[in-house]
Amino acid sequence: MKSAITAVLLAGGESTRFAPFTEKNSFILLGKPLLLWHYEQLLRLGITHVVVVTNELNDEYIKTIEVPEKLTVSYVTQKNKGQVQALLAIEKECSGEVLLLNASDYYADAGITTFLHGIDKNTIALGAIKTGYYFPGGYLKVDANNIVSEIIEKPKIGEEPSDIVRILIDYIPDISLFIEVAKKHSSNAASGYEEAVNALMKMSGNAKAIVLDKNMWKPIKYPWNVLDVAELLLSEMKGTQIDKSVVIKEHVIIEGPVVIESGVKIFEGTKIVGPVYIGKNTIIGNNNIIRSSSIGDDCVTGFNSDITRSVIGNNCWFHTNYVGDSVVGNNVSMGSGTVTANLRLDDGEIQSIIKEEKINTGRNKLGVLVGDNVRIGVNASTMPAIKIGSDSFIAAGIVLTQDIPARSFVRPIATGFVVKENTKAAATSRDSFRKVL
Amino acid sequence: MKSAITAVLLAGGESTRFAPFTEKNSFILLGKPLLLWHYEQLLRLGITHVVVVTNELNDEYIKTIEVPEKLTVSYVTQKNKGQVQALLAIEKECSGEVLLLNASDYYADAGITTFLHGIDKNTIALGAIKTGYYFPGGYLKVDANNIVSEIIEKPKIGEEPSDIVRILIDYIPDISLFIEVAKKHSSNAASGYEEAVNALMKMSGNAKAIVLDKNMWKPIKYPWNVLDVAELLLSEMKGTQIDKSVVIKEHVIIEGPVVIESGVKIFEGTKIVGPVYIGKNTIIGNNNIIRSSSIGDDCVTGFNSDITRSVIGNNCWFHTNYVGDSVVGNNVSMGSGTVTANLRLDDGEIQSIIKEEKINTGRNKLGVLVGDNVRIGVNASTMPAIKIGSDSFIAAGIVLTQDIPARSFVRPIATGFVVKENTKAAATSRDSFRKVL
Amino acid sequence: MKSAITAVLLAGGESTRFAPFTEKNSFILLGKPLLLWHYEQLLRLGITHVVVVTNELNDEYIKTIEVPEKLTVSYVTQKNKGQVQALLAIEKECSGEVLLLNASDYYADAGITTFLHGIDKNTIALGAIKTGYYFPGGYLKVDANNIVSEIIEKPKIGEEPSDIVRILIDYIPDISLFIEVAKKHSSNAASGYEEAVNALMKMSGNAKAIVLDKNMWKPIKYPWNVLDVAELLLSEMKGTQIDKSVVIKEHVIIEGPVVIESGVKIFEGTKIVGPVYIGKNTIIGNNNIIRSSSIGDDCVTGFNSDITRSVIGNNCWFHTNYVGDSVVGNNVSMGSGTVTANLRLDDGEIQSIIKEEKINTGRNKLGVLVGDNVRIGVNASTMPAIKIGSDSFIAAGIVLTQDIPARSFVRPIATGFVVKENTKAAATSRDSFRKVL
Repeated sequence: MKSAITAVLLAGGESTRFAPFTEKNSFILLGKPLLLWHYEQLLRLGITHVVVVTNELNDEYIKTIEVPEKLTVSYVTQKNKGQVQALLAIEKECSGEVLLLNASDYYADAGITTFLHGIDKNTIALGAIKTGYYFPGGYLKVDANNIVSEIIEKPKIGEEPSDIVRILIDYIPDISLFIEVAKKHSSNAASGYEEAVNALMKMSGNAKAIVLDKNMWKPIKYPWNVLDVAELLLSEMKGTQIDKSVVIKEHVIIEGPVVIESGVKIFEGTKIVGPVYIGKNTIIGNNNIIRSSSIGDDCVTGFNSDITRSVIGNNCWFHTNYVGDSVVGNNVSMGSGTVTANLRLDDGEIQSIIKEEKINTGRNKLGVLVGDNVRIGVNASTMPAIKIGSDSFIAAGIVLTQDIPARSFVRPIATGFVVKENTKAAATSRDSFRKVL
Repeated sequence: MKSAITAVLLAGGESTRFAPFTEKNSFILLGKPLLLWHYEQLLRLGITHVVVVTNELNDEYIKTIEVPEKLTVSYVTQKNKGQVQALLAIEKECSGEVLLLNASDYYADAGITTFLHGIDKNTIALGAIKTGYYFPGGYLKVDANNIVSEIIEKPKIGEEPSDIVRILIDYIPDISLFIEVAKKHSSNAASGYEEAVNALMKMSGNAKAIVLDKNMWKPIKYPWNVLDVAELLLSEMKGTQIDKSVVIKEHVIIEGPVVIESGVKIFEGTKIVGPVYIGKNTIIGNNNIIRSSSIGDDCVTGFNSDITRSVIGNNCWFHTNYVGDSVVGNNVSMGSGTVTANLRLDDGEIQSIIKEEKINTGRNKLGVLVGDNVRIGVNASTMPAIKIGSDSFIAAGIVLTQDIPARSFVRPIATGFVVKENTKAAATSRDSFRKVL
Repeated sequence: MKSAITAVLLAGGESTRFAPFTEKNSFILLGKPLLLWHYEQLLRLGITHVVVVTNELNDEYIKTIEVPEKLTVSYVTQKNKGQVQALLAIEKECSGEVLLLNASDYYADAGITTFLHGIDKNTIALGAIKTGYYFPGGYLKVDANNIVSEIIEKPKIGEEPSDIVRILIDYIPDISLFIEVAKKHSSNAASGYEEAVNALMKMSGNAKAIVLDKNMWKPIKYPWNVLDVAELLLSEMKGTQIDKSVVIKEHVIIEGPVVIESGVKIFEGTKIVGPVYIGKNTIIGNNNIIRSSSIGDDCVTGFNSDITRSVIGNNCWFHTNYVGDSVVGNNVSMGSGTVTANLRLDDGEIQSIIKEEKINTGRNKLGVLVGDNVRIGVNASTMPAIKIGSDSFIAAGIVLTQDIPARSFVRPIATGFVVKENTKAAATSRDSFRKVL
């Protein structure tokens, strides 16, 4: 089922709301960078040619990302911001039918399949979802048969032309024509792309909206969105694969689908509740519980940790921690007893400060977001949605209630105790307590 | 063995020293309110008619408490304070032989049996204990055969007429006569009852003291007394009853008598050390230890909790907590790593502030006392005997050293840390540590 | 293989840098005081007569230390400080060949064997190591055949006569002659001994340096050096010895060589990773991990503790603690959740303050050093290398960042929280969270 369609992955956006992480396309989930997940998905769906639009900052390492056999990938770099600029950049790389995708959005296989099955040859198709609430994006003006006449960008609340919100998965029957049209809108970085689609629709007669179940679409805008994509990828894991080199000690329980890579050791008393991915050479110590998570290579979870619904990078060290609904970068360690709070006391929706603005995360469970090369001391506590910048130290016992910039050292304000010498109280013997043992 | 005796349960007292809990009679222990424990015990001992004396505040819900088949219960409400007023209230509800009991005192089966066996028909019998130390209550003036001539209320220290202290379990051969006598003392709320007994003894010739082993008597005055009654009820559990719907995973150890109700799930690596009661649909997670405790319905203990010698209400959530010698109300949750300290550093007797007065609790092990609807954050610590009022929030990392009123939010005084930016120290790789694993 | 050599153990030094511990010779490791380990080692190597040089402070209890059958021990007390004074003290106790050893240095069996095999009858032999870095001690001036002409005390950096540093294990063929020589140097407490060796070498023609692998030599100067000796003793444990009275419950894993003494109980879910020593009647609770450690008699590890590379005295109580690379005295308890940090955040070399001077410990892993009779509350944290003096209390939640003198009470500076009453936020039901369980 080889498709004639070329997929264009728009990876030239910046990751400005993604701190403490740096780049979405190379972010590793379940052992593979996000872009490789796209490549494999497209290949699985019959697409064999991909064009990746990079920007000047990420171009170099995007080219280092592995490409599956049977897939051909071309790279082009967009010089200026905006999706319309990305279009102009691909002019020489493709022609004919094109599937345009935002590289930082990931779809369930079933979602993309629905879209591809919904395409009519020679008709523009625009992906969309129904949100059920106001969304500050592009709405589709459609008729009763979901035939689109116009994209209306950010209508006022109450003036939405429908409840159908556009997401960036577009089928363009003739990309060359579209690029020609787009050239006239190239000065509008913010919405030149949508203007071009509107103009193209006017020329071509009509377009089709293909409405996907909103659970099929997992965009990554904020760092916690990584959890959404990880959850999807974990849920799509097919069966259990445990490398034959994996050492599993006695009294280990493994339930549900898991992928456990070579060199992993799992010690006694531990339970793995799939879907779980564990990367190469990672050591899962005694009496751990690991649930619905992706853990990178070369990690050590030590004794007694609970890692739940989290994404952990490579080379991370834990020891008697609770890591819940959290995203942890590479080379991070937590001291014994450190806990990531993942619920507000009132169980309410958790907010996060992004670029000095308070953002609703849409989650009532969200732990910590930790950049690379961070050390957290013993018995510390991180509050929900706190972001810790890379290359930082957080001292023992801290209750971390605010975001921390990169390269910070967070320590107690002053010695939090008094020492009274020559106290008269004396430790008693505990012999009497032994009686009940 | 059906008895002609009517039991009168005096439940009209206020629970003014019982905060953060509200009402003793409806307090649920091992799945049943205290009053139902009384009903079942009385029925077990052959008593089939009970009169419950309520007050205007608790009358309504006391009437909602289940009554066992074969037991008939009448309710009367006392309008004014004092046990003598309770007597007057029951005038129309009973006649003949009566066993008068304080509903907030619970007895071992063997204790009540001793009392009932000790009764001589037609002779007043007064329950008592030997304390071994001064007790600010009523002392019995007795002869060598434990024939009582007088109750002496609160004698001065050194002037006690004996070492026999009265507790409120009285057998009255002719309750109507007693009530007649009591009417003359009805203006004395504090000790009109005892005056009436004294007068009755003068009329009837004599009364008998029945001295019980003091361990047979478990009065509930302060909130921690709940632990005493729970310990007694747990110790009286007959054998093990595990509902057939209970799910018990691998590597679970269950020792000693346990009652485990329907719908309970117990996960791997957990140990239950009886006597333990676990209510309906409660989930005991992985690697927990539960000892000598009563846990309510619909609770979740999460991963790695230790619940020991405690009473837990319904709908409580734990996660890697130590809850020892504690009483926890309904709908309470503790964040991961939160610990209830249950010993002073010097192992000394623990004190509590009740109505601004420092009270010796008589315990050297006592944890926390938590009202309903409380949320405690992660890595918090509660000091021994601390009372947390209902509907309160305690923030993460707090070391709670004082009682907290209902509807409070306890949070750190200020951000307890400084953030030094652009630190030069850098996280190193931990590869060298892997060698020893 | 009975040797004609008399061993002289110099135990008359003070333990001034050993706080919070008091005396090295009686410090118990793997169930025996250090001096008994010396006795057994010497006997194992064929030496049957030992002279112990005590001081006036430790003489009494050194004499109480058990002496193995087949070994004869004489005690002499040195009145003044200095090794040369120790020499003068033994004059009447021995003659002929003598092996002089510092009692606070312990050697691997292989180290002492190397030394004894290296001896030539009638030739002075001086033990030494190659450090590879500057060491503020005595250097040996040697020729190509390791023939020593002189000890040079504390040469300036760069002026060392060789890379061979003397350690105090000396073979003296004629102790009487040596003592005669030493008398002339008796006024120099600091280096009279070395002056005497130099003078003796001038008289006797020459001496031989016997260079030991530096890993064979474990001197105890600072309290953390106890860990080095314990590590050596553990590594020299021969096979596993578990007393027949030991109770081991289900699901316990025991790996590697262990010695487990009588009366020990080990509960379910626990793992012991040898080499480990566990003293009499100690209770290892559920779900513990014990690695590479020596634990004394009558301890209780409670639920969920991790004790790793540590030395624990008698009568210590733990409960959900991490104790790593730590030395804990007798009658110490830690509250639930208390953690000993054993790594700096930058993984760097850990320093300690000894007599107001900052000392490099030579370790990047080092936990806490706790004297006798100490109580630490719940959820406390101790920073690496912190010393807690005996008879002290450390309150709950403290992050202990400085050394604490004996008989101290460490508590928070002030109530670290505010209580806001009549908060409007309310605890919600957690029913919705149950769906995922």
